[in-house]
Amino acid sequence: MKNEIITLAQNLIQRESISPDDKGCQQVIAELLEKEGFEIEWLPFNDTLNLWATHGTSENKKNSPCVAFAGHTDVVPVGDISQWQVSPFSAEIIDDMLYGRGAADMKGSLSAMVIAARDFVKNNPDHKGKVALLITSDEEAAAKDGTVKVVETLMQRNEPIHYCVVGEPSSTLQFGDVIKNGRRGSITGNLYIKGILGHVAYPHLAENPIHKALPMLNELANYQWDNGNAYFPATSLQIVNVKAGTGSNNVIPDEIYVQFNLRFSTEINAEMIKQKVAELLDKYALTYRIEWNLSGNPFLTDEGKLIDVAVKSIEKFANITPKLETTGGTSDGRFIAQMGAEIIEFGPLNKTIHKANECVNCDDLAKSGAIYFNILEQLLK
Amino acid sequence: MKNEIITLAQNLIQRESISPDDKGCQQVIAELLEKEGFEIEWLPFNDTLNLWATHGTSENKKNSPCVAFAGHTDVVPVGDISQWQVSPFSAEIIDDMLYGRGAADMKGSLSAMVIAARDFVKNNPDHKGKVALLITSDEEAAAKDGTVKVVETLMQRNEPIHYCVVGEPSSTLQFGDVIKNGRRGSITGNLYIKGILGHVAYPHLAENPIHKALPMLNELANYQWDNGNAYFPATSLQIVNVKAGTGSNNVIPDEIYVQFNLRFSTEINAEMIKQKVAELLDKYALTYRIEWNLSGNPFLTDEGKLIDVAVKSIEKFANITPKLETTGGTSDGRFIAQMGAEIIEFGPLNKTIHKANECVNCDDLAKSGAIYFNILEQLLK
Repeated sequence: MKNEIITLAQNLIQRESISPDDKGCQQVIAELLEKEGFEIEWLPFNDTLNLWATHGTSENKKNSPCVAFAGHTDVVPVGDISQWQVSPFSAEIIDDMLYGRGAADMKGSLSAMVIAARDFVKNNPDHKGKVALLITSDEEAAAKDGTVKVVETLMQRNEPIHYCVVGEPSSTLQFGDVIKNGRRGSITGNLYIKGILGHVAYPHLAENPIHKALPMLNELANYQWDNGNAYFPATSLQIVNVKAGTGSNNVIPDEIYVQFNLRFSTEINAEMIKQKVAELLDKYALTYRIEWNLSGNPFLTDEGKLIDVAVKSIEKFANITPKLETTGGTSDGRFIAQMGAEIIEFGPLNKTIHKANECVNCDDLAKSGAIYFNILEQLLK
Repeated sequence: MKNEIITLAQNLIQRESISPDDKGCQQVIAELLEKEGFEIEWLPFNDTLNLWATHGTSENKKNSPCVAFAGHTDVVPVGDISQWQVSPFSAEIIDDMLYGRGAADMKGSLSAMVIAARDFVKNNPDHKGKVALLITSDEEAAAKDGTVKVVETLMQRNEPIHYCVVGEPSSTLQFGDVIKNGRRGSITGNLYIKGILGHVAYPHLAENPIHKALPMLNELANYQWDNGNAYFPATSLQIVNVKAGTGSNNVIPDEIYVQFNLRFSTEINAEMIKQKVAELLDKYALTYRIEWNLSGNPFLTDEGKLIDVAVKSIEKFANITPKLETTGGTSDGRFIAQMGAEIIEFGPLNKTIHKANECVNCDDLAKSGAIYFNILEQLLK
């Protein structure tokens, strides 16, 4: 199994599939699965390629659940190439470490999922329920035509996913130490505060939007949204972009643009956030326009069969009891969570992701394959 | 006199002398003055042309003062040409109004000064003291190689100016209503406040420079520097440009850039301003870098012979008693003030300067010429 996982991972890494360009990765995977009797369905949306591959049928969660592996073939750009000590797309192995852009995020674990699913079906052609793979080429960039659209399609035709493992690299210090069993919500506010243009020599004829915005922004940055809970850290707001001014040092501008992002817990929701921000803007009597972009609501799988079997499998093959965490960025799990699925993210170490010299331990990939295989066995055998 | 002023002004307006391109304006003026026996000295610096034209000699302020007229031949760009109802460089006269870029700022009053100086010398070839014209082609733009350099040159060779009239359009509602007898200082701070770059999902690993800067900026924007005095309005600080952020909504940036400008009275000085800003930055324990740019210290001619004779001349020819004011933007007067000269700015209405359809009343130009002539008579006859 190890050799096949590594060979597939190398094949995928050698394809320069910068989001949303799949560069043939999904075709390789589809052919491999089709040989073992998987049904292949292509669900392209605009420039994004999506693959929905299934084996078996699902009637209900109890007796014949649908167990899905979710992953992506796209990778982030290589960044400053001079920082790389290996070619980012040659997929070299040095001291049992597989190097290359996407090695850890997530062509390595994706390969482990594909080989595990295929082997499970090969060994158990008459398994109960359904094995599925949901693979997209746009997770790293806009994420507008990838998993979100596949989920919409599946929900429209009442095709549920009951259990889902996302192959994101969740391990932090040691392989197997962390399962992500949820994620915080993410919402971005694009705020435009208005003033009146004028010459600095005549400030009484102008209204400086920067000066007007400062007290409100200060209160916004310091506001305590909640204290988190057992599963989530406290909600955090960060002002990430600010722009005001004409470039000239003698002109009072007529607008300041402020972009802020919140990572929020299940203690609040998007509506409460919007309301509080509006309240603050009104408190300071500001003239403004605001555009909101909700990237995802928080989701949580706090108990259930999936976590039980995943923890057992990890203990068996990685010899460690994983912690459950909800920290970190967003992932496509937020879309699949809308289907009511039990959902976890589990994969190799994330230390080098998005960085130069991204790499993954080959042995960890082999263990990942064994864990994914074992999860299927426990849920569908 | 009126016809000659208008003809010269039209000749100058027809030359598209966008700063610092003189486009031959000073040559026209030099030839006109040279015929009457003026000494012509060219003082070019880099791309800026400067003319220092003199007649007579100055020993001391009391018996043989140097009376200078200061002006500029450069103009600001025309802006949105579709807003102009006349061609900006055709110098058309409609209903006794002379139209064109530079008509009011300040080719009109410059022409009045040149004709007045020439006529005075023609009528009084043996006048006492010295009549001088200091003309530059870079007042509107960088102002780095214009009047400031001529003043340096004159000071190095101990060639004083005792009285100076700058031809800037000082009239506000009615011709003659305002003499500027000083200007506020202007200083710009370019402030870079440092933080630590990071991902919004992990704010504890980053340090948001925007959040850190907000309380300090709020205090800076609200600080009461002084209450002004009899001649100056209160010092005013305006934050004019702000920029922070990588453009991404999930990255905490490592720096915020803030540019602010102060127009300051004679109640404080540049050193006091720098010290207070440093104090505020330290109070909030910020890591920062700041670059200061002092455009000019405040200056004031609060009493003396020049104001007396100018007020009398204006009363005589414009039939109004002018108010003394120090408001508004900077002018080249700030450089000449360093020579210890009594200095005023007086010229036509400033309502249309830097705007589309800039214009000046031809009769006001004639009156300006008479006033400039009369000032010379009172000081040098």
